[in-house]
Amino acid sequence: MRFSDGVEWSVHSCLVLAALPEGVGLPGAKLAEFHSLPAAYLAKHMQALVRAGVVESIPGRHGGYRLARPASEITVADVVTAIEGNRSAFRCTEIRRQGPGAGQPCEYQTACLVSRVMGGAEQAWRSELSKWTLADLAFDPASAAYLRQDAWLSDVLEARG
Amino acid sequence: MRFSDGVEWSVHSCLVLAALPEGVGLPGAKLAEFHSLPAAYLAKHMQALVRAGVVESIPGRHGGYRLARPASEITVADVVTAIEGNRSAFRCTEIRRQGPGAGQPCEYQTACLVSRVMGGAEQAWRSELSKWTLADLAFDPASAAYLRQDAWLSDVLEARG
Repeated sequence: MRFSDGVEWSVHSCLVLAALPEGVGLPGAKLAEFHSLPAAYLAKHMQALVRAGVVESIPGRHGGYRLARPASEITVADVVTAIEGNRSAFRCTEIRRQGPGAGQPCEYQTACLVSRVMGGAEQAWRSELSKWTLADLAFDPASAAYLRQDAWLSDVLEARG
Repeated sequence: MRFSDGVEWSVHSCLVLAALPEGVGLPGAKLAEFHSLPAAYLAKHMQALVRAGVVESIPGRHGGYRLARPASEITVADVVTAIEGNRSAFRCTEIRRQGPGAGQPCEYQTACLVSRVMGGAEQAWRSELSKWTLADLAFDPASAAYLRQDAWLSDVLEARG
């Protein structure tokens, strides 16, 4: 079981967007360039982020992608859910109801403990990711290539006047 | 991102094995029959459980699969790891080092916070699954078809004398 590369790409790309000045967007090609990512593939993930309301795409000369709300109001869980969906990793197919040990339907009014344990663990995972906002991550020197991007970003923004 | 059906099958099948009398194994075909599972496909997962030291396969007239240690010493995490492996769902490919924001190698001695947050969440998930042993689950009336299996199991065991 493994996430798509889109999770890493999306979190880091959202951190770049968190560094944009007010009212300005960054075109997808430039966003891809910042981490040397394949633009077409990144665009697919950005669309998922737009659909999830994490990112918005604004038109015009200063347009492009930007965060749809403040970085302090977007959690890592929001980004991961936008890319990977929110269905659970564990799928209960109710095999407890099959075979020689099967009972009557009325015996299954309580969810299977196996399913509840799995669900509880996924909830713990999601809850941990919900504790961190993009703002918490944006100023970590070990991860923040975007902390060094001032010159690059200024050049990009100035080039379009 | 979704687990294989093998996770559900394996946990429930291990719970059936937890109900076996001392020194007795259950043949794979009978184990599959108990939850009406495809025997060949279940066998693949049982082999993974054997390799992980969760289940053992004993030879002889009373042979078959049985738990390799007491149910109280096998956690749900042990079973899930046997089936899904223990590599993390999040893969860090270090894109922070790529592109115009990239720094010198010495700037990356600390792991990226993005990667640490993802790892922490997976740790929370695994830790939750580690809290539950097969013995905890084996006597839950909502999940335990195996609590009603006495007659079936007795018949199976008696049939081989």
